[in-house]
Amino acid sequence: MSSKGLLIVISGPSGVGKGTVVKALLKQRNDTEVSVSATTRQRRDGEIDGVNYHYMTEEDFLKIKEQDGFVECARFCDNYYGTLKSEVFEKLESGINIILEIEVQGAMNVRRKYPEGVFIYIMPPSMSELRARLTGRNTEPPEIVEERLKTAKWEFTHLDKYNYIVENENVPQTAHTISCIIEAEQSRMERKIDYMKERFK
Amino acid sequence: MSSKGLLIVISGPSGVGKGTVVKALLKQRNDTEVSVSATTRQRRDGEIDGVNYHYMTEEDFLKIKEQDGFVECARFCDNYYGTLKSEVFEKLESGINIILEIEVQGAMNVRRKYPEGVFIYIMPPSMSELRARLTGRNTEPPEIVEERLKTAKWEFTHLDKYNYIVENENVPQTAHTISCIIEAEQSRMERKIDYMKERFK
Repeated sequence: MSSKGLLIVISGPSGVGKGTVVKALLKQRNDTEVSVSATTRQRRDGEIDGVNYHYMTEEDFLKIKEQDGFVECARFCDNYYGTLKSEVFEKLESGINIILEIEVQGAMNVRRKYPEGVFIYIMPPSMSELRARLTGRNTEPPEIVEERLKTAKWEFTHLDKYNYIVENENVPQTAHTISCIIEAEQSRMERKIDYMKERFK
Repeated sequence: MSSKGLLIVISGPSGVGKGTVVKALLKQRNDTEVSVSATTRQRRDGEIDGVNYHYMTEEDFLKIKEQDGFVECARFCDNYYGTLKSEVFEKLESGINIILEIEVQGAMNVRRKYPEGVFIYIMPPSMSELRARLTGRNTEPPEIVEERLKTAKWEFTHLDKYNYIVENENVPQTAHTISCIIEAEQSRMERKIDYMKERFK
Protein backbone atom coordinates (compact mmCIF):
# COMPACT_ATOMS: atom_id res chain seq x y z
CA MET A 1 0.00 0.00 0.00
CA SER A 2 1.59 3.26 -1.08
CA SER A 3 0.32 6.03 1.16
CA LYS A 4 1.39 9.43 2.39
CA GLY A 5 3.82 9.67 5.24
CA LEU A 6 2.76 10.89 8.68
CA LEU A 7 3.67 14.34 9.94
CA ILE A 8 4.76 13.63 13.51
CA VAL A 9 5.19 16.55 15.87
CA ILE A 10 7.21 15.91 19.02
CA SER A 11 7.31 18.47 21.81
CA GLY A 12 8.46 18.40 25.38
CA PRO A 13 10.20 20.66 27.87
CA SER A 14 13.80 21.66 27.36
CA GLY A 15 15.95 18.97 28.98
CA VAL A 16 13.43 16.12 28.67
CA GLY A 17 15.62 14.32 26.13
CA LYS A 18 13.66 14.81 22.89
CA GLY A 19 16.79 14.75 20.75
CA THR A 20 18.09 11.51 22.26
CA VAL A 21 14.69 9.83 21.93
CA VAL A 22 14.34 10.88 18.29
CA LYS A 23 17.84 9.60 17.53
CA ALA A 24 16.96 6.20 19.04
CA LEU A 25 13.66 6.15 17.14
CA LEU A 26 15.34 6.81 13.78
CA LYS A 27 17.61 3.80 14.34
CA GLN A 28 14.49 1.63 14.70
CA ARG A 29 12.62 2.89 11.63
CA ASN A 30 13.86 3.38 8.09
CA ASP A 31 10.50 4.87 7.02
CA THR A 32 10.97 7.93 9.23
CA GLU A 33 13.18 11.01 9.05
CA VAL A 34 13.58 14.11 11.16
CA SER A 35 13.11 17.54 9.68
CA VAL A 36 16.03 19.84 10.45
CA SER A 37 14.68 23.14 11.82
CA ALA A 38 16.05 26.56 11.07
CA THR A 39 17.07 28.71 14.04
CA THR A 40 18.72 31.99 14.89
CA ARG A 41 20.03 30.69 18.21
CA GLN A 42 23.75 30.21 18.87
CA ARG A 43 25.24 26.88 17.88
CA ARG A 44 26.23 24.86 20.96
CA ASP A 45 29.48 22.89 21.20
CA GLY A 46 29.19 19.64 19.27
CA GLU A 47 26.21 20.76 17.18
CA ILE A 48 26.56 20.63 13.41
CA ASP A 49 24.97 23.02 10.90
CA GLY A 50 22.44 21.14 8.71
CA VAL A 51 22.28 18.23 11.17
CA ASN A 52 21.06 19.70 14.47
CA TYR A 53 19.69 22.90 12.95
CA HIS A 54 20.08 25.12 9.94
CA TYR A 55 21.70 28.04 11.76
CA MET A 56 20.99 31.42 10.22
CA THR A 57 21.02 35.13 10.95
CA GLU A 58 17.85 36.87 12.03
CA GLU A 59 17.91 38.76 8.72
CA ASP A 60 17.95 35.58 6.60
CA PHE A 61 15.31 33.95 8.81
CA LEU A 62 12.91 36.87 8.45
CA LYS A 63 13.43 36.94 4.67
CA ILE A 64 12.32 33.28 4.35
CA LYS A 65 9.39 34.01 6.68
CA GLU A 66 8.30 36.87 4.43
CA GLN A 67 8.41 34.54 1.40
CA ASP A 68 6.08 32.06 3.23
CA GLY A 69 8.82 29.46 3.29
CA PHE A 70 8.03 28.06 6.75
CA VAL A 71 5.45 25.44 7.80
CA GLU A 72 5.59 27.19 11.17
CA CYS A 73 7.95 29.49 12.94
CA ALA A 74 8.00 30.98 16.42
CA ARG A 75 10.03 33.11 18.75
CA PHE A 76 11.11 31.18 21.85
CA CYS A 77 13.54 32.24 24.59
CA ASP A 78 14.66 35.22 22.47
CA ASN A 79 15.43 33.20 19.36
CA TYR A 80 13.54 32.27 16.21
CA TYR A 81 12.85 28.65 15.30
CA GLY A 82 11.11 27.48 12.12
CA THR A 83 10.31 24.43 9.98
CA LEU A 84 11.22 24.92 6.33
CA LYS A 85 8.53 23.79 3.86
CA SER A 86 11.32 22.48 1.65
CA GLU A 87 12.20 19.96 4.40
CA VAL A 88 8.72 18.46 4.71
CA PHE A 89 6.20 18.16 1.89
CA GLU A 90 7.96 16.25 -0.88
CA LYS A 91 9.03 13.60 1.60
CA LEU A 92 5.52 13.17 3.04
CA GLU A 93 4.17 12.68 -0.50
CA SER A 94 6.73 9.97 -1.17
CA GLY A 95 5.55 8.04 1.90
CA ILE A 96 8.28 9.01 4.38
CA ASN A 97 7.16 9.95 7.91
CA ILE A 98 8.59 13.30 8.95
CA ILE A 99 9.30 14.23 12.56
CA LEU A 100 9.19 17.86 13.64
CA GLU A 101 10.83 18.41 17.02
CA ILE A 102 9.30 21.74 17.99
CA GLU A 103 7.99 23.63 20.99
CA VAL A 104 4.35 24.11 21.95
CA GLN A 105 3.61 27.36 20.11
CA GLY A 106 5.04 25.94 16.87
CA ALA A 107 3.17 22.67 17.36
CA MET A 108 -0.12 24.52 17.74
CA ASN A 109 0.56 26.49 14.56
CA VAL A 110 1.19 23.23 12.69
CA ARG A 111 -1.94 21.67 14.17
CA ARG A 112 -4.11 24.49 12.89
CA LYS A 113 -2.89 23.88 9.32
CA TYR A 114 -2.42 20.06 9.49
CA PRO A 115 -4.86 18.59 12.00
CA GLU A 116 -4.15 15.15 10.50
CA GLY A 117 -0.65 15.32 12.02
CA VAL A 118 0.28 13.17 15.01
CA PHE A 119 1.06 15.32 18.05
CA ILE A 120 3.17 13.77 20.81
CA TYR A 121 4.26 15.43 24.04
CA ILE A 122 7.18 13.92 25.97
CA MET A 123 6.98 14.32 29.76
CA PRO A 124 9.82 14.02 32.27
CA PRO A 125 9.45 11.40 35.03
CA SER A 126 9.14 14.28 37.53
CA MET A 127 9.79 18.00 37.94
CA SER A 128 12.85 17.37 40.10
CA GLU A 129 14.27 15.00 37.47
CA LEU A 130 13.79 17.71 34.83
CA ARG A 131 15.62 20.24 37.00
CA ALA A 132 18.45 17.76 37.54
CA ARG A 133 18.80 17.16 33.81
CA LEU A 134 18.82 20.88 32.98
CA THR A 135 21.35 21.61 35.72
CA GLY A 136 23.53 18.64 34.79
CA ARG A 137 23.73 19.81 31.18
CA ASN A 138 25.95 22.71 32.32
CA THR A 139 25.30 24.70 29.16
CA GLU A 140 23.03 27.33 30.68
CA PRO A 141 23.36 29.69 33.65
CA PRO A 142 20.94 29.18 36.59
CA GLU A 143 18.56 31.95 35.56
CA ILE A 144 18.08 30.30 32.16
CA VAL A 145 17.40 26.97 33.90
CA GLU A 146 14.70 28.67 36.01
CA GLU A 147 13.21 30.25 32.90
CA ARG A 148 13.09 26.86 31.16
CA LEU A 149 11.38 25.26 34.18
CA LYS A 150 8.80 28.05 34.21
CA THR A 151 8.23 27.50 30.48
CA ALA A 152 7.85 23.74 31.14
CA LYS A 153 5.10 24.41 33.70
CA TRP A 154 3.30 26.64 31.22
CA GLU A 155 3.62 23.92 28.55
CA PHE A 156 2.03 21.33 30.89
CA THR A 157 -1.18 23.39 30.81
CA HIS A 158 -1.35 22.64 27.06
CA LEU A 159 -1.16 18.83 27.15
CA ASP A 160 -4.73 18.62 25.89
CA LYS A 161 -3.59 19.97 22.52
CA TYR A 162 -1.62 16.77 21.86
CA ASN A 163 -2.80 13.30 20.78
CA TYR A 164 -0.33 11.36 22.91
CA ILE A 165 1.57 11.89 26.17
CA VAL A 166 4.66 9.73 26.63
CA GLU A 167 6.81 9.72 29.77
CA ASN A 168 10.53 9.50 29.12
CA GLU A 169 11.58 7.17 31.93
CA ASN A 170 14.18 5.52 29.74
CA VAL A 171 15.12 6.28 26.16
CA PRO A 172 14.73 2.84 24.49
CA GLN A 173 11.24 2.37 25.97
CA THR A 174 10.16 5.89 24.95
CA ALA A 175 11.49 5.36 21.41
CA HIS A 176 9.65 2.02 21.25
CA THR A 177 6.38 3.64 22.36
CA ILE A 178 6.68 6.35 19.70
CA SER A 179 7.48 3.70 17.09
CA CYS A 180 4.26 1.93 18.15
CA ILE A 181 2.32 5.18 17.87
CA ILE A 182 3.54 5.50 14.26
CA GLU A 183 2.54 1.88 13.53
CA ALA A 184 -0.89 2.36 15.12
CA GLU A 185 -1.55 5.67 13.38
CA GLN A 186 -0.85 4.04 10.01
CA SER A 187 -3.78 1.72 10.76
CA ARG A 188 -6.21 4.40 11.92
CA MET A 189 -9.59 4.10 10.24
CA GLU A 190 -9.57 7.68 8.95
CA ARG A 191 -6.29 7.05 7.10
CA LYS A 192 -7.27 3.67 5.61
CA ILE A 193 -10.99 3.69 4.90
CA ASP A 194 -10.88 5.24 1.41
CA TYR A 195 -8.20 2.82 0.30
CA MET A 196 -10.15 -0.16 1.71
CA LYS A 197 -13.47 0.93 0.23
CA GLU A 198 -11.78 1.24 -3.16
CA ARG A 199 -10.24 -2.21 -2.92
CA PHE A 200 -13.31 -4.04 -1.64
CA LYS A 201 -16.11 -2.23 -3.50
CA MET B 1 1.26 4.04 36.76
CA SER B 2 -1.68 1.93 37.79
CA SER B 3 -4.52 2.49 35.35
CA LYS B 4 -7.57 0.72 34.03
CA GLY B 5 -7.16 -1.87 31.33
CA LEU B 6 -8.31 -1.25 27.76
CA LEU B 7 -11.44 -2.85 26.39
CA ILE B 8 -10.31 -3.99 22.93
CA VAL B 9 -12.94 -5.10 20.47
CA ILE B 10 -11.73 -7.13 17.49
CA SER B 11 -14.04 -7.87 14.58
CA GLY B 12 -13.52 -9.20 11.09
CA PRO B 13 -15.26 -11.47 8.61
CA SER B 14 -15.60 -15.15 9.30
CA GLY B 15 -12.45 -16.83 7.97
CA VAL B 16 -10.16 -13.80 8.27
CA GLY B 17 -8.15 -15.46 11.03
CA LYS B 18 -9.20 -13.46 14.10
CA GLY B 19 -8.69 -16.40 16.46
CA THR B 20 -5.16 -17.14 15.21
CA VAL B 21 -4.18 -13.47 15.40
CA VAL B 22 -5.52 -13.13 18.96
CA LYS B 23 -3.65 -16.28 20.01
CA ALA B 24 -0.38 -14.84 18.62
CA LEU B 25 -1.07 -11.49 20.30
CA LEU B 26 -1.63 -13.08 23.73
CA LYS B 27 1.78 -14.77 23.49
CA GLN B 28 3.36 -11.31 23.03
CA ARG B 29 1.56 -9.55 25.90
CA ASN B 30 1.08 -10.66 29.48
CA ASP B 31 -1.07 -7.60 30.26
CA THR B 32 -3.85 -8.77 27.93
CA GLU B 33 -6.47 -11.51 28.08
CA VAL B 34 -9.30 -12.61 25.84
CA SER B 35 -12.86 -12.72 27.10
CA VAL B 36 -14.51 -16.05 26.40
CA SER B 37 -17.91 -15.44 24.77
CA ALA B 38 -21.06 -17.38 25.40
CA THR B 39 -22.79 -18.95 22.42
CA THR B 40 -25.65 -21.21 21.49
CA ARG B 41 -23.91 -22.42 18.35
CA GLN B 42 -22.71 -26.02 17.97
CA ARG B 43 -19.25 -26.82 19.24
CA ARG B 44 -16.86 -27.57 16.32
CA ASP B 45 -14.34 -30.41 16.41
CA GLY B 46 -11.34 -29.40 18.48
CA GLU B 47 -13.11 -26.58 20.31
CA ILE B 48 -13.15 -26.68 24.11
CA ASP B 49 -15.96 -25.43 26.36
CA GLY B 50 -14.71 -22.51 28.48
CA VAL B 51 -11.73 -21.93 26.17
CA ASN B 52 -13.20 -21.19 22.74
CA TYR B 53 -16.68 -20.37 23.99
CA HIS B 54 -18.97 -20.98 26.89
CA TYR B 55 -21.43 -23.24 25.03
CA MET B 56 -24.96 -23.07 26.33
CA THR B 57 -28.55 -23.83 25.43
CA GLU B 58 -30.78 -21.11 24.05
CA GLU B 59 -32.83 -21.34 27.23
CA ASP B 60 -29.84 -20.67 29.53
CA PHE B 61 -28.60 -17.90 27.23
CA LEU B 62 -31.92 -16.07 27.28
CA LYS B 63 -32.13 -16.39 31.08
CA ILE B 64 -28.77 -14.58 31.51
CA LYS B 65 -29.88 -11.98 28.97
CA GLU B 66 -33.01 -11.33 30.99
CA GLN B 67 -30.91 -10.83 34.13
CA ASP B 68 -28.81 -8.19 32.28
CA GLY B 69 -25.75 -10.38 32.55
CA PHE B 70 -24.29 -9.53 29.12
CA VAL B 71 -22.14 -6.57 28.05
CA GLU B 72 -23.60 -7.23 24.61
CA CYS B 73 -25.30 -10.07 22.86
CA ALA B 74 -26.52 -10.57 19.32
CA ARG B 75 -28.09 -13.11 17.00
CA PHE B 76 -25.78 -13.97 14.09
CA CYS B 77 -26.20 -16.70 11.47
CA ASP B 78 -29.06 -18.25 13.50
CA ASN B 79 -27.13 -18.45 16.77
CA TYR B 80 -26.78 -16.24 19.83
CA TYR B 81 -23.41 -14.85 20.89
CA GLY B 82 -22.78 -12.76 23.99
CA THR B 83 -20.09 -11.28 26.24
CA LEU B 84 -20.64 -12.06 29.91
CA LYS B 85 -20.19 -9.07 32.24
CA SER B 86 -18.55 -11.44 34.71
CA GLU B 87 -15.74 -11.98 32.16
CA VAL B 88 -14.89 -8.31 31.71
CA PHE B 89 -15.24 -5.63 34.38
CA GLU B 90 -13.22 -6.82 37.35
CA LYS B 91 -10.26 -7.51 35.09
CA LEU B 92 -10.41 -4.08 33.45
CA GLU B 93 -10.42 -2.47 36.91
CA SER B 94 -7.33 -4.43 37.90
CA GLY B 95 -5.46 -3.06 34.85
CA ILE B 96 -5.73 -6.05 32.52
CA ASN B 97 -6.62 -5.33 28.88
CA ILE B 98 -9.57 -7.43 27.75
CA ILE B 99 -10.12 -8.50 24.16
CA LEU B 100 -13.62 -9.15 22.88
CA GLU B 101 -13.63 -11.04 19.59
CA ILE B 102 -17.12 -10.23 18.34
CA GLU B 103 -19.02 -9.46 15.16
CA VAL B 104 -20.12 -6.04 13.94
CA GLN B 105 -23.55 -5.84 15.55
CA GLY B 106 -22.12 -6.80 18.94
CA ALA B 107 -19.23 -4.37 18.51
CA MET B 108 -21.64 -1.52 17.80
CA ASN B 109 -23.63 -2.37 20.92
CA VAL B 110 -20.45 -2.27 22.99
CA ARG B 111 -19.41 1.01 21.40
CA ARG B 112 -22.67 2.67 22.38
CA LYS B 113 -22.07 1.79 26.04
CA TYR B 114 -18.23 2.03 26.11
CA PRO B 115 -17.09 4.59 23.54
CA GLU B 116 -13.68 4.62 25.27
CA GLY B 117 -13.08 1.07 23.99
CA VAL B 118 -10.61 0.40 21.17
CA PHE B 119 -12.37 -0.95 18.08
CA ILE B 120 -10.26 -2.85 15.55
CA TYR B 121 -11.49 -4.42 12.32
CA ILE B 122 -9.34 -7.10 10.66
CA MET B 123 -9.51 -7.19 6.85
CA PRO B 124 -8.53 -10.05 4.56
CA PRO B 125 -5.85 -9.35 1.91
CA SER B 126 -8.57 -9.73 -0.76
CA MET B 127 -12.07 -11.11 -1.31
CA SER B 128 -10.74 -14.12 -3.22
CA GLU B 129 -8.33 -14.91 -0.39
CA LEU B 130 -11.23 -14.79 2.07
CA ARG B 131 -13.24 -17.19 -0.10
CA ALA B 132 -10.23 -19.52 -0.33
CA ARG B 133 -9.82 -19.55 3.45
CA LEU B 134 -13.52 -20.23 4.06
CA THR B 135 -13.59 -23.00 1.45
CA GLY B 136 -10.31 -24.51 2.69
CA ARG B 137 -11.66 -24.75 6.22
CA ASN B 138 -14.01 -27.54 5.07
CA THR B 139 -16.29 -27.11 8.07
CA GLU B 140 -19.19 -25.47 6.28
CA PRO B 141 -21.26 -26.40 3.20
CA PRO B 142 -21.02 -24.09 0.14
CA GLU B 143 -24.26 -22.23 0.89
CA ILE B 144 -22.95 -21.26 4.33
CA VAL B 145 -19.70 -20.06 2.73
CA GLU B 146 -21.74 -17.85 0.38
CA GLU B 147 -23.76 -16.53 3.29
CA ARG B 148 -20.57 -15.67 5.19
CA LEU B 149 -19.14 -13.85 2.16
CA LYS B 150 -22.34 -11.85 1.81
CA THR B 151 -22.16 -10.98 5.51
CA ALA B 152 -18.50 -9.93 5.02
CA LYS B 153 -19.50 -7.50 2.27
CA TRP B 154 -22.18 -6.03 4.50
CA GLU B 155 -19.63 -5.68 7.32
CA PHE B 156 -17.25 -3.74 5.03
CA THR B 157 -19.86 -0.99 4.78
CA HIS B 158 -19.40 -0.46 8.55
CA LEU B 159 -15.63 0.07 8.67
CA ASP B 160 -16.17 3.69 9.70
CA LYS B 161 -17.50 2.50 13.06
CA TYR B 162 -14.04 1.20 14.02
CA ASN B 163 -10.93 3.09 15.21
CA TYR B 164 -8.42 0.92 13.36
CA ILE B 165 -8.37 -1.22 10.21
CA VAL B 166 -5.65 -3.87 10.06
CA GLU B 167 -5.03 -6.15 7.08
CA ASN B 168 -4.16 -9.72 7.98
CA GLU B 169 -1.49 -10.45 5.37
CA ASN B 170 0.47 -12.56 7.82
CA VAL B 171 -0.34 -13.44 11.41
CA PRO B 172 2.86 -12.31 13.23
CA GLN B 173 2.75 -8.88 11.57
CA THR B 174 -0.96 -8.43 12.31
CA ALA B 175 -0.44 -9.44 15.96
CA HIS B 176 2.48 -6.99 16.18
CA THR B 177 0.37 -4.16 14.77
CA ILE B 178 -2.40 -4.82 17.29
CA SER B 179 0.16 -4.96 20.10
CA CYS B 180 1.37 -1.53 18.92
CA ILE B 181 -2.19 -0.23 18.90
CA ILE B 182 -2.52 -1.29 22.55
CA GLU B 183 0.79 0.42 23.40
CA ALA B 184 -0.22 3.60 21.56
CA GLU B 185 -3.71 3.71 23.09
CA GLN B 186 -2.20 3.51 26.58
CA SER B 187 -0.42 6.79 25.76
CA ARG B 188 -3.42 8.61 24.30
CA MET B 189 -3.87 12.07 25.76
CA GLU B 190 -7.46 11.42 26.85
CA ARG B 191 -6.34 8.44 28.95
CA LYS B 192 -3.32 10.13 30.55
CA ILE B 193 -4.07 13.80 31.02
CA ASP B 194 -5.82 13.57 34.41
CA TYR B 195 -3.02 11.48 35.83
CA MET B 196 -0.38 13.87 34.46
CA LYS B 197 -2.15 17.01 35.67
CA GLU B 198 -2.39 15.46 39.13
CA ARG B 199 1.31 14.61 39.18
CA PHE B 200 2.62 17.91 37.79
CA LYS B 201 0.20 20.38 39.35
